[in-house]
Amino acid sequence: MTTPPTPRVTIKDVAARAGVSKGAVSLAFNQRPGLSEATRDRIFAAARELGWAPNSSARSLSSRRVDAVGLAICRPARLLGLEPFYMEFVSGVESVLTERSCSLLLRLVRNLEEEAGLLDTWWRGKQVGGSILVDFHADDPRPAAVERLGLPVVAVGHPSLTGSLPSVWTDDATAVTEAVRYLAALGHRRIARVGGAAAFGHTSIRTAAFDEAARALELAGAWQVATDFSGESGARATRSLLSALGEDRPTAIVYDNDIMAVAGLSVAAEMGLRVPDDVSLLAWDDSQLCRLTHPTLSAMSHDVHGFGAEVARTLFEVITGGEGGGSHPVPTPVLTPRGSTAPPRRAGHG
Amino acid sequence: MTTPPTPRVTIKDVAARAGVSKGAVSLAFNQRPGLSEATRDRIFAAARELGWAPNSSARSLSSRRVDAVGLAICRPARLLGLEPFYMEFVSGVESVLTERSCSLLLRLVRNLEEEAGLLDTWWRGKQVGGSILVDFHADDPRPAAVERLGLPVVAVGHPSLTGSLPSVWTDDATAVTEAVRYLAALGHRRIARVGGAAAFGHTSIRTAAFDEAARALELAGAWQVATDFSGESGARATRSLLSALGEDRPTAIVYDNDIMAVAGLSVAAEMGLRVPDDVSLLAWDDSQLCRLTHPTLSAMSHDVHGFGAEVARTLFEVITGGEGGGSHPVPTPVLTPRGSTAPPRRAGHG
Repeated sequence: MTTPPTPRVTIKDVAARAGVSKGAVSLAFNQRPGLSEATRDRIFAAARELGWAPNSSARSLSSRRVDAVGLAICRPARLLGLEPFYMEFVSGVESVLTERSCSLLLRLVRNLEEEAGLLDTWWRGKQVGGSILVDFHADDPRPAAVERLGLPVVAVGHPSLTGSLPSVWTDDATAVTEAVRYLAALGHRRIARVGGAAAFGHTSIRTAAFDEAARALELAGAWQVATDFSGESGARATRSLLSALGEDRPTAIVYDNDIMAVAGLSVAAEMGLRVPDDVSLLAWDDSQLCRLTHPTLSAMSHDVHGFGAEVARTLFEVITGGEGGGSHPVPTPVLTPRGSTAPPRRAGHG
Repeated sequence: MTTPPTPRVTIKDVAARAGVSKGAVSLAFNQRPGLSEATRDRIFAAARELGWAPNSSARSLSSRRVDAVGLAICRPARLLGLEPFYMEFVSGVESVLTERSCSLLLRLVRNLEEEAGLLDTWWRGKQVGGSILVDFHADDPRPAAVERLGLPVVAVGHPSLTGSLPSVWTDDATAVTEAVRYLAALGHRRIARVGGAAAFGHTSIRTAAFDEAARALELAGAWQVATDFSGESGARATRSLLSALGEDRPTAIVYDNDIMAVAGLSVAAEMGLRVPDDVSLLAWDDSQLCRLTHPTLSAMSHDVHGFGAEVARTLFEVITGGEGGGSHPVPTPVLTPRGSTAPPRRAGHG
């Protein structure tokens, strides 16, 4: 009598035994973050008991040519074309992809649930070898979806927003605090911030940091206005701040990007206010726009192109399981004073 | 005497040339396994040499779901992030793709030969269902490559540049002529153009049209300067035009995009020249930037977002063999006068 052949143990069997998804088993064996210690232990135990080890095909990612990586952006198409940030970010990503003969699969999505579904389609259809996730919200559905799939990703956002995903971020809280301190050091006591869309996690981080800095510095006035990042909404916010408050208007305004600061410059001119004598303006991101205005715009300079390149490099590390795939910040935006910031003219009023 | 008809190349010819069976050719073109790398290459080479493409695969597209379309851009990554045009164009393309659950495969290439090779890889690897071709040069290698492959494309450019490919274009010659006529009608007799990169076909078309209009209007002075489309190069060109020529400097300048016109505005302010009293400036493309400056910038308005959307719609028509896939122009840029153009102050000097 011959022994019947032992049925081949598969990753599915391991997953079933450990009570987890196949993706979780894959995460555990690829040393990826996203699993609790207990779950990881249970998976390894199940694999040991069944005599299973990940075969070469599971590991083959590291040797596989990656033809494309994905980037889904959840913003209206119209707005995307208006802000320099994304094109600079994409150009930085492309600069690294080009070196590796890799393309970027770009898609606009209407909501994060649609994005989660798209990631599933891309990954199962082998359209991408990994993906870049941006614009994290509170209760973001993507970390869970990505972990289920075992899709290699890099999240662009602070770890407080991105869960256990490998992430690359800018330290927005420190940068906002530095911006407010600088304006206060110039003598400004009434400072406003024209911020981005409230739903974004990084906007919340900046909003909290601004509040905290204003409190710590005991400013006489501090205002924050949410916008959609467009120049038009930045112009409206500036007009409202500079007119509704009369003599008690802010003497300095910090913006969440540079296109809104350019718009603010124009609103000041339209209202007969001189920059920086009557009102100081401080931009964010600092694309070439800030050096093309008159006066030139002081800014919290952020190498957005370099940020995109670093995100792409990190994604390749994650895909190939290399050393550099860990979460880390990129350099914090630095204050670059130019022509649009100065001490308030009527210091007695400040 | 009648010319004998050119014999139609068939799959049999390709098979004979490659020294394989018809079945092998079919396997190769249907991405089926079973052929060695060398055989596959020999078959593709034979098909290329004979100018053969499989009919059925061209036909079957209409029923095939298109998951992605390609767009390769041959510009340095750094420059790509600086100009509003491409992001607006891409956002327009995405607006149509999103409706059809289709992604955009984006790649920066170093030269057009690299792009021709990339199109080959994308098409054979079934990574794209079609592609958008931009920035045509004289003697462009892409039309021939695309025809060999049988890849569905839409060329963005005037038919004089794009060969027999289906194309969508703006009538640059008419728009340039209108811009010069408008400035001349205001009383300007010395007019300059800060143009784009000389290698681009559409730049040549604009350059020729400007020369022709200047001649027809018998302008007292007409200058054209080539740039790389960046704000910095636009600033340099403006500074040179306004300073080197002294009192004979141009009283009006037309720019090939809007970021260079924003830079020109700043250079005028830095040189103590008032816009539009001392010099009129006319932008091109007309992104939101033109409405955010002070004075606002007059522009040749071009709905770049709509242009991208129309190109994407046309590509889907080409892919599915529909009616609307023929070559056609999009609306010609229209003159939108704002605050930066006026009659020259010292008319006697004009």
